[in-house]
Amino acid sequence: MNDIQKRVTASFNAQGLMTTLGATLSLVADGEVHIEVPYSPHISQQHGFMHGGAVGSILDSACGYAAMTKTPAGSEIVSVEFKINFVRPAIGDRFVAVGKVQTAGKLLLVSAGEVRAYTGNDYKIVALMQATMMNVQK
Amino acid sequence: MNDIQKRVTASFNAQGLMTTLGATLSLVADGEVHIEVPYSPHISQQHGFMHGGAVGSILDSACGYAAMTKTPAGSEIVSVEFKINFVRPAIGDRFVAVGKVQTAGKLLLVSAGEVRAYTGNDYKIVALMQATMMNVQK
Amino acid sequence: MNDIQKRVTASFNAQGLMTTLGATLSLVADGEVHIEVPYSPHISQQHGFMHGGAVGSILDSACGYAAMTKTPAGSEIVSVEFKINFVRPAIGDRFVAVGKVQTAGKLLLVSAGEVRAYTGNDYKIVALMQATMMNVQK
Amino acid sequence: MNDIQKRVTASFNAQGLMTTLGATLSLVADGEVHIEVPYSPHISQQHGFMHGGAVGSILDSACGYAAMTKTPAGSEIVSVEFKINFVRPAIGDRFVAVGKVQTAGKLLLVSAGEVRAYTGNDYKIVALMQATMMNVQK
Repeated sequence: MNDIQKRVTASFNAQGLMTTLGATLSLVADGEVHIEVPYSPHISQQHGFMHGGAVGSILDSACGYAAMTKTPAGSEIVSVEFKINFVRPAIGDRFVAVGKVQTAGKLLLVSAGEVRAYTGNDYKIVALMQATMMNVQK
Repeated sequence: MNDIQKRVTASFNAQGLMTTLGATLSLVADGEVHIEVPYSPHISQQHGFMHGGAVGSILDSACGYAAMTKTPAGSEIVSVEFKINFVRPAIGDRFVAVGKVQTAGKLLLVSAGEVRAYTGNDYKIVALMQATMMNVQK
Repeated sequence: MNDIQKRVTASFNAQGLMTTLGATLSLVADGEVHIEVPYSPHISQQHGFMHGGAVGSILDSACGYAAMTKTPAGSEIVSVEFKINFVRPAIGDRFVAVGKVQTAGKLLLVSAGEVRAYTGNDYKIVALMQATMMNVQK
Repeated sequence: MNDIQKRVTASFNAQGLMTTLGATLSLVADGEVHIEVPYSPHISQQHGFMHGGAVGSILDSACGYAAMTKTPAGSEIVSVEFKINFVRPAIGDRFVAVGKVQTAGKLLLVSAGEVRAYTGNDYKIVALMQATMMNVQK
C-alpha cells in the first residue's frame, strides 16, 4: 500500500459503523474511493431493500475518503454536508459506493458519487450524491 | 396507539437497520416523529463520535415517518432525496432525531429535521436536514 | 440604522442582480433578513410564474445576509452551497424571502429560509432552503 | 431544428428571466442542454462577480431542459428541488451552464450540471448542481 492507501485504510478501519454495516474498502486511488457492502437483512428498510441511510453511510464515507486522497499527511476530512438522491430501490446482491473528487480547494472540497447495486455482474445506479468536505488539520 | 402510530410502528419495526443501530421510536404525532439511539462504538466514525451516516439514517427515517403521518392508510413513503448539514461533532450519551413535515402535497412532501445530541438533560443540535418524500400507493 | 443594518444594506445595494430583479431589503434583524420583490414578467419562467432561479436568488441573499448579522465587522459572507425545494408554483403579487440563521460557527454558518408568495395579505410558502455560508475575513 | 429542440427553444424563449439575465440556449442535445450568458454588472453580487443566484438560475434551467429532452411531447418539466455548490468566485467573460440527465424515471428525473466561467478560451468550473425534476403532463 502507498501512503494515501495507508491513511485511508487506517481511518476506515477505525469507523465502527463500517464494520457494523459489513462494509469494506475496495479501491483507494487518487481522487476516487470505492466502498462495498454485501446485502444483508440487518441493513434493510421496511421492504427488505437496503435502507437509504445505509446507502448514504457508505457513499458519505466514499466521498470523504476520496477527498482525503487530495490532502497532505496530517489532514483529516470532515463532512460539512451532503445531498443524496435515491433513484431506484436498492435491490441487489452487493452494493458499491463510488466517491470521486470534483474540485479540491485548500479548505473545502466537493465530491460526487453513486451507489451501484449489483445483481451478478450487472449493476444499476440506485443513488447519487454531491457532498462538501472540509480539510481539517489534526 | 392510534391508527397512524400503529402504521408508523409497524413499518419502523420492519427496518432491519434501525434495530442494528439500536434505534427506537420515541414520538409519533401528527406531522412529527422522533427516533432515539443511545451512543455505542458500533455506530461510530474514526474518532469514536457517532458516524454521519448513522446520524443521517435516523433523521431520514424520522423525516419519512413524519411525512407518513400526513398520508391516508395504504400509503407508503419513499425518500426521494435528502440534504443534511453536520454542524457539530456528534458527541453525546444519546441522540434524538426530530423530523417535522413542512409542506404536504398529495404526491410530494417536504420534511425538515434535526438531530439533538444529549449529554444528560442538555442537548446540542449536531445535524440539520431538508428532505423530499413521495407518497406511494401500495 | 445600526451597524449591522448599515453593513448589510451597503453590501445588498452593491448587488447588481438585486436591482435587476427589483428586490429590496425589508428587514435586517439579529439572525434574520427579509428580501422582497414584486411580481414582474421580467423574472418569470415559461408559464409566467416567478422563475425558480429568481426565487433562489432572493432566498440565497436573504440566507447569506442573515448569516452576516452573526459576524463581526470586517467579515464577508460567501455562499458555500444551498439546497432549495420548490413546493408550489410561485404565483403572487409579491414575494418575500425570509432567511434565518440556524447555527453559527466561527467559519461556517447554516441558514434556513422560505419564500412567501403574497396575494393581498395572505401568503403561501413556495420554496424552502437550507444553505451553508462561510465567514471570510476581508 | 428537430422536435425536441423546438420544444426546448419555445419554452426557453417564454422564460422572462432568461432574457433579463441575457442568457441564450447554445446546445440542445439528447440528455444535455447548455445555456450561456455574457458577464454583465446587472447580474453581479457585491464584488462585481456573477451572483450565485444568477449562476443557479441558468444551471437550474439547463438541468430542467436536459430532463425535458428525455420526455415525450406534451410533457412539461418542473424543478422539484436543486442543490448547488459554489466552488470558485464566478469571474469570467462569459458563463456556460451545462446540464445533463443522470437518471430518467417516468415521473422523476435527476440532472447534474456545472457552470463554466470562461476567460477567453479557457474555463474554470465555478458551480456544481444536482437537481430533481418532475415530468408533468400538460
